[in-house]
Amino acid sequence: MKRIADSTVRRLSVYLRYLEELEARSIATTSSDELAAHSGTTSAQVRKDLSFFGSFGKRGLGYSVPELTARIRQILGLGREWRVVIVGAGKIGSALSAYRGFTQRGFTVVGVYDNDPSKIGKRWNGETIRDISALETDAVRDRPDIAVLAIPADDVQGEVDRIVRAGIKAILNFAPAQVIAPPGVTIKNVNMAMELEGLSYALSHRE
Amino acid sequence: MKRIADSTVRRLSVYLRYLEELEARSIATTSSDELAAHSGTTSAQVRKDLSFFGSFGKRGLGYSVPELTARIRQILGLGREWRVVIVGAGKIGSALSAYRGFTQRGFTVVGVYDNDPSKIGKRWNGETIRDISALETDAVRDRPDIAVLAIPADDVQGEVDRIVRAGIKAILNFAPAQVIAPPGVTIKNVNMAMELEGLSYALSHRE
Repeated sequence: MKRIADSTVRRLSVYLRYLEELEARSIATTSSDELAAHSGTTSAQVRKDLSFFGSFGKRGLGYSVPELTARIRQILGLGREWRVVIVGAGKIGSALSAYRGFTQRGFTVVGVYDNDPSKIGKRWNGETIRDISALETDAVRDRPDIAVLAIPADDVQGEVDRIVRAGIKAILNFAPAQVIAPPGVTIKNVNMAMELEGLSYALSHRE
Repeated sequence: MKRIADSTVRRLSVYLRYLEELEARSIATTSSDELAAHSGTTSAQVRKDLSFFGSFGKRGLGYSVPELTARIRQILGLGREWRVVIVGAGKIGSALSAYRGFTQRGFTVVGVYDNDPSKIGKRWNGETIRDISALETDAVRDRPDIAVLAIPADDVQGEVDRIVRAGIKAILNFAPAQVIAPPGVTIKNVNMAMELEGLSYALSHRE
């Protein structure tokens, strides 16, 4: 299967949201028109996105909701366990690990780390906060797949380097800094400052 | 000034991150090469992005850091107060309002709302949680610019409709649902489920 664009992966996630809604309401079929209308795109785009992964649906009959849902989940790599470490035992990490969709998608927290001596050893959402300097040795045992990086901007790159040395291949970065990862490591940046600035820009430039 | 793409606005935010770093280190000039290297883009893209807003910098001399920083802040609509209501007095709203960059960018919380009777009237990060049904009448007095929507997926559209009726023109949506806003209202979706699925996809499709 060829490499597909990030924007396509994001739209698959959006389609999945709507398909899960239909599934919850026991609706058996849907159409590219309907998927498009609920996903802020066009039906041509829906058909193009799904065509990357083989043929779906029947002309005039639409898509089977259970079949398409299962196929998109499979494409997105859901339905298996992803082992997650949280680096930074603060409010963002806490909000994320309490998020229902986190466990629903197979994400399991296998460790929580901080560099603050006053936090290390304390309980935090059912986990004991560990010393960040133990990450590399712990990783040999715990085999985490993903690191959630939720620390202040200072020395973000240092922590990214540590995470990469620990053999972790995917990072969800909440720190307000651009980070550079070596090839083979995927970083998703969730940058609150950028979202806020995007809104500020939109409000400043309305007619 | 013509309408510019979201992707350009996002890159301006990234350039601003780096320029603020340079400013903090009292560095007076920078180049499109340097900006590009710290922003994950090309110097041609940097020059193109900045060209939307007039001419910056001098060939061979680069850009003045204070001048370019001030201009990008102005373009992004920073440097004035944006009045924010938080809808959903939970962990995400709490993490956001505690975030240093929030107040640094001129975002001021003017009200926190929830629909849970056990929360209404309680104190929350220095605010008293108000009944969501009061949003529209409060908005006449408080004139909020932005609503942060941090509630569970159920009835997100109902709350979006209420926010829009209250005359608010920008929404930062953390709820795991696609929402439809009328023309003239800007919505930024911060969708944890989608970020997690993006990572899951990347991990599933590595060579």
